[in-house]
Amino acid sequence: MATEISELGEFGLIERITGDFNIKNDSTVKGVGDDAAVIGNGDNKIIISTELLLEGIHFDLIYTPLMHLGYKAVIAGISDIYAMYGTPRQIMVNIGLSAKFTVEQVEELYKGIKIACGNYGLDLIGGDTSSSMTGLTINITAIGHADNDSIVYRNGAQLNDLICVTGNLGAAFMGLQLLEREKIALQGIDNPTPQFEGYDYILKRQLKPEAKKKVIGRMQEIGIVPTSMIDLTDGLASDLLHICKQSECGARIYLNRIPIAKETFTIAEELNFDPVVAALNGGEDYELLFTLPISKQSEISNLPDTEIIGHITKKSTGVALTTPDGQDIQIQAPGWKQE
Amino acid sequence: MATEISELGEFGLIERITGDFNIKNDSTVKGVGDDAAVIGNGDNKIIISTELLLEGIHFDLIYTPLMHLGYKAVIAGISDIYAMYGTPRQIMVNIGLSAKFTVEQVEELYKGIKIACGNYGLDLIGGDTSSSMTGLTINITAIGHADNDSIVYRNGAQLNDLICVTGNLGAAFMGLQLLEREKIALQGIDNPTPQFEGYDYILKRQLKPEAKKKVIGRMQEIGIVPTSMIDLTDGLASDLLHICKQSECGARIYLNRIPIAKETFTIAEELNFDPVVAALNGGEDYELLFTLPISKQSEISNLPDTEIIGHITKKSTGVALTTPDGQDIQIQAPGWKQE
Repeated sequence: MATEISELGEFGLIERITGDFNIKNDSTVKGVGDDAAVIGNGDNKIIISTELLLEGIHFDLIYTPLMHLGYKAVIAGISDIYAMYGTPRQIMVNIGLSAKFTVEQVEELYKGIKIACGNYGLDLIGGDTSSSMTGLTINITAIGHADNDSIVYRNGAQLNDLICVTGNLGAAFMGLQLLEREKIALQGIDNPTPQFEGYDYILKRQLKPEAKKKVIGRMQEIGIVPTSMIDLTDGLASDLLHICKQSECGARIYLNRIPIAKETFTIAEELNFDPVVAALNGGEDYELLFTLPISKQSEISNLPDTEIIGHITKKSTGVALTTPDGQDIQIQAPGWKQE
Repeated sequence: MATEISELGEFGLIERITGDFNIKNDSTVKGVGDDAAVIGNGDNKIIISTELLLEGIHFDLIYTPLMHLGYKAVIAGISDIYAMYGTPRQIMVNIGLSAKFTVEQVEELYKGIKIACGNYGLDLIGGDTSSSMTGLTINITAIGHADNDSIVYRNGAQLNDLICVTGNLGAAFMGLQLLEREKIALQGIDNPTPQFEGYDYILKRQLKPEAKKKVIGRMQEIGIVPTSMIDLTDGLASDLLHICKQSECGARIYLNRIPIAKETFTIAEELNFDPVVAALNGGEDYELLFTLPISKQSEISNLPDTEIIGHITKKSTGVALTTPDGQDIQIQAPGWKQE
């Protein structure tokens, strides 16, 4: 038997290989299947998330400065902690380095890690370096703390809950497209000068994203606890499917409610790319997608940069995107095998 | 400036890149520099360790069955938790997979992970899969629990403490040498039949090691708390240097006290390799090296498979190995830049 991994999709594979593990310890509160795991026996819970970032898959060093990469790796880790309504406090970093890397380059990477630790109040508490046959491997473990009764999971969305997103979507993906265009255009040219003027915003979203510390802090301040939450790393489509699958519900979102920055529209037009597809499937936004009871509608206006994009429906209606002319499109996403 | 990483050594590099990070959170009890990190505010502490295992560096799939690899990856993770006197309870597993891997192969890997979880009472609480450009990347995060006042660090060794090791050393390394010999001998041969009869013990030590659950359990039962401890993964020389560096002390160990299995002697003779070098520098033993006050000497006999191999000295005497004819050799180790 030789089944290709693509036949199952990423999420099908994870289900298949982790499905028959049983939980044996009281201190395991939440295992596989959310943004992060939750452990601990008392009221104070520990939230842990790990990420693996591989050269050539998750980043391209041709256009990614190492300092930015270090910063972004930390953001990728702690974004999962915020998505559980937790506060990140510690990170661990392992790196695998091929022979091409110098000490100074590793220091650049760690400069970015250190700046992120400063901006987000994190302690670096561990991490090894090892040799690698091929390129750079980065592994980030992010650790957060939360009260037992305020942790937010993917599985709590209720019928008629409002679906909200922070910030805007698709910018990081369009930034990546721009970087890829310049890479191809400048191949083989000595002293290449890529054309990046006017693209600061989308490049920053791709190369130096931020985690949603401010929104979560504001929610905690005014006592808004979402019924479900996930961070937008795979794209709105895929991440909304996670919420719906785990909450056993459907959803309806409205295309013209999806927040997309004007800079994203501009570059999408230039590159002849549909900005809505970038928002739905692009990923790496590090924004938050969450649900709230409709009774909390008035409080959403107190949250910075937060938009209502739809509502939770019955499971039987599926996950639908309504276009401005009233058409319904069933949402599908990469990484999910269609049933 | 372009400094090669080899100029600093692995441990020099880690010191250089992590040296100027400061600790900001009360919940950080122990950061960089031990087998694992320790976090938490109350009496119950969480111990966390992460490992990165890269194909071609840490394992060779030509002679490593995937099920064994999964098992060994878990052992590598939880060994660090035992080395802190903790009890491992949870693991997280991330894998990066190149296109050559099938679903069935990933299932084999996870079979080994599952058996290890069963044997050691662990919950699998998270983990992603992702694509990889090259081969297999495994990242294990191990999480343990311990009482605040019983965690054992590397930095607690005191003058005149006895230095103890569990089990025997060098077997895993000689197992690796045997596997490498057969790999080379059988290159280019169709249907190769490697000669492994009679080598079960050393192959098991290399391919399916165990962590020291039993010894730690016994210590906890009878109330023996080491003054310092580390797990033997880089070889006795390197790991003893860690204890001495962090405890700011020297050490004297006796060559003829180093426990080496008869199977290790046999294969070492066959391969014309010094078994003492295998014990000192081989690594991957997953045994424990620890120190105890001399007043506890009589209690050591209650611990399974534990030998006294020397004692802690003043820092100024350095770390010395005394040969049977009374000569002192200063201990040096790979990964350490000599000062």
